[in-house]
Amino acid sequence: MRPVIDRRWAPVRQWPYAANNTADWRWEYGYPTFPQLTWSPPPVVNGSAEKGEGTADRQQPLTFVLVHGSWADSSYWDGIAAELRKTGHTVYAPEYPGHGSDPSNEVSHAMMTRSIADFIVSKQLNDIVLVGHSFGGTLIQKTAELIPERIKRLVFLDAFVLKDGESTADELPPATREGFEKLRQSSEHDTIMLPFPLFRETFANLAGLEVVRRLYDKIRPEPAKPLFEKLDLQAFYKLDLPKSYVYLTEDNVLPQGGGYGWHPHMSGRLGLFRLIKGHSDHMTTARTEPGKIAGLLYAAGRD
Amino acid sequence: MRPVIDRRWAPVRQWPYAANNTADWRWEYGYPTFPQLTWSPPPVVNGSAEKGEGTADRQQPLTFVLVHGSWADSSYWDGIAAELRKTGHTVYAPEYPGHGSDPSNEVSHAMMTRSIADFIVSKQLNDIVLVGHSFGGTLIQKTAELIPERIKRLVFLDAFVLKDGESTADELPPATREGFEKLRQSSEHDTIMLPFPLFRETFANLAGLEVVRRLYDKIRPEPAKPLFEKLDLQAFYKLDLPKSYVYLTEDNVLPQGGGYGWHPHMSGRLGLFRLIKGHSDHMTTARTEPGKIAGLLYAAGRD
Amino acid sequence: MRPVIDRRWAPVRQWPYAANNTADWRWEYGYPTFPQLTWSPPPVVNGSAEKGEGTADRQQPLTFVLVHGSWADSSYWDGIAAELRKTGHTVYAPEYPGHGSDPSNEVSHAMMTRSIADFIVSKQLNDIVLVGHSFGGTLIQKTAELIPERIKRLVFLDAFVLKDGESTADELPPATREGFEKLRQSSEHDTIMLPFPLFRETFANLAGLEVVRRLYDKIRPEPAKPLFEKLDLQAFYKLDLPKSYVYLTEDNVLPQGGGYGWHPHMSGRLGLFRLIKGHSDHMTTARTEPGKIAGLLYAAGRD
Repeated sequence: MRPVIDRRWAPVRQWPYAANNTADWRWEYGYPTFPQLTWSPPPVVNGSAEKGEGTADRQQPLTFVLVHGSWADSSYWDGIAAELRKTGHTVYAPEYPGHGSDPSNEVSHAMMTRSIADFIVSKQLNDIVLVGHSFGGTLIQKTAELIPERIKRLVFLDAFVLKDGESTADELPPATREGFEKLRQSSEHDTIMLPFPLFRETFANLAGLEVVRRLYDKIRPEPAKPLFEKLDLQAFYKLDLPKSYVYLTEDNVLPQGGGYGWHPHMSGRLGLFRLIKGHSDHMTTARTEPGKIAGLLYAAGRD
Repeated sequence: MRPVIDRRWAPVRQWPYAANNTADWRWEYGYPTFPQLTWSPPPVVNGSAEKGEGTADRQQPLTFVLVHGSWADSSYWDGIAAELRKTGHTVYAPEYPGHGSDPSNEVSHAMMTRSIADFIVSKQLNDIVLVGHSFGGTLIQKTAELIPERIKRLVFLDAFVLKDGESTADELPPATREGFEKLRQSSEHDTIMLPFPLFRETFANLAGLEVVRRLYDKIRPEPAKPLFEKLDLQAFYKLDLPKSYVYLTEDNVLPQGGGYGWHPHMSGRLGLFRLIKGHSDHMTTARTEPGKIAGLLYAAGRD
Repeated sequence: MRPVIDRRWAPVRQWPYAANNTADWRWEYGYPTFPQLTWSPPPVVNGSAEKGEGTADRQQPLTFVLVHGSWADSSYWDGIAAELRKTGHTVYAPEYPGHGSDPSNEVSHAMMTRSIADFIVSKQLNDIVLVGHSFGGTLIQKTAELIPERIKRLVFLDAFVLKDGESTADELPPATREGFEKLRQSSEHDTIMLPFPLFRETFANLAGLEVVRRLYDKIRPEPAKPLFEKLDLQAFYKLDLPKSYVYLTEDNVLPQGGGYGWHPHMSGRLGLFRLIKGHSDHMTTARTEPGKIAGLLYAAGRD
């Protein structure tokens, strides 16, 4: 005879993902230790099992907060947000200091994170799916430390997942990091402007030239300091939040291998995470096929 | 002048895949030594070269024997088997001890393997395409040792390919293995029940919650012992059988890298093998899109 | 206030890709040093931003020169060339010594390269997109040294990118290399004939048997010497040419990992490159779905 299993509370407390330290990073590709995941199967909130899932009229309504990356502003999300709203979701794409209409270059990582957290609190948002793209991954890591109770799930979209004590620049190959350092030093306002060849070939590789030029013409130099700030992420690695990683398979911004890259290199740091993949480059598919990226974000964000 | 080539008997005997030892595992990602592959181009059994191939009415009829993995039973194959039969194939999905209607937890790896081999012999099956999914890979490795003469080809579907002397647990990252050990120790009948978060995020990442819950509700705790048994696979690595590996690109059960994972980590142990890939997670695409998986199995199993 | 940015001349001169030595190969997966890339956004030559790009009647007209690999001849490109011509491109697929109608096996890598360069010069071709498939990658590396001024971009299609001083054979796993060496020694005319199992499983894994046989029947033994020649590529690594790598995700000719493989292993040597991916095996998708491969080559070759 087999024992009766309480499926709502399957024995996750003993699970090693629940270990309460982050000192052991030996298994970067695997499942490093991570705080306990005690969540049980959530109830099905709409629809029945008889009908097919995933159709537009049957999606579980979610509240998305979308955080863009470097050399971008909140308009990066316009097409994706419109697609998500069409399928019944609530979407916010807060701007943060040093971007969009804010001309300041005197910004820090903490100012950015605080701004995002303040936005979420001021709007009284709860149960949010907090999405970070690229550098935005580092911002949602820190935002999660500030307001974990408001977050339903973290979603990293080809986003940096930094180790405790790391900076974004630490995750760049040495030649790229040195290049950015030189661009920074030669700038007047401690910024970094993306050289066109780098943007065209590694951020925008799937797009035609007209789209690439249009997007490049809108790029403002990125405030450099936050990219080089080392982040204290001890609290992040003690959080007990569900996490997803969306890997865009044609993303060419980072080399994929040799100790670099989005997946499995950085995704593996999340401990237990949901994996979603899609054909997309780093920057342009979000503009040319926003519905595709919206679909990936829903698959990543739902319960 | 070039020599006349006997194409039916291309010089495969000298091929190093034909080396007769398995001691040298240095090239795990590559082509380790493997017994000789002396097969020559098989005759085309149906259809002509004028018509397109791959259409449903033109498939080479195959006999599939499908072996499921852990936390599953033979109903795992229902949809896939139906699709394969529709296109003219013969399909068997034998149940093995400790699964399906058998409530026993007192099972060994050898009992499982023997049961599968006995099934094949009792049905007088020959020229079979023997497919293993997940833990089922270890079962077809051992089954192949028992009845190699009945097997046309081995197909591993995101399946474990163990080295000689390994257990399935040896291929898990340390944190996962320790987690399974704790679950095993805290069970009453030496079983392991999958925690829901682990199932949802890594076995069922592409499915909607309703599908995930429906599948999770059917899962029985898995007898633990066979997962930890070290297997003698010396005979397997001397077999001369064609092999295919089907890699499901969204499978999140194992980390893909750092010395773990389905492909190329375990596939590379097969020596010469045919590679087929498809978008699928570990457990649910077989249910939600069985025709897709059936198509992958045909592409993997045909001559 | 932010500085005005001259976007046509973004600061690429300081970029470390511009470093003028290739000695440091430590970051093979990443961005090794590479000559400077001074190109700026090219003008849009046809069409306006209002209409969608990428449609057949809106492609930027390109001149492709297509260089096939081993165990092939220029007919490898027939279907792809026809598709490219349909969309307005000019396409050449020169044959080189030891292949096609040339029965000689007494060929060297330099003879092949010289033949391709002579073809391009004799046709007075300029601004070409020079594409190499497989072994053809090594040929376009050397051709680029001879006539860099005629090349608009190099495109590697699951092609070898050799390091300075390497041979093609150096990029094969030891067991494969030894196998080729034995086949070479046992041949009468210093050639290597592909064993059928190797061709079927690793070059032609996605095709049905009829296609595989038809293609295999046309294969001539490959002159062995050029595969084992060490190439001086110092000049190549000083060239300032845009480059793309097209990675075919089901290509099973080389293991993908453990220090071998097309991408990111060899692609990473290109320094800054554009990444394009597609579902295809090494040899047969070019025949069964030439329009798909043509689309990848256009995406790789356009400005």
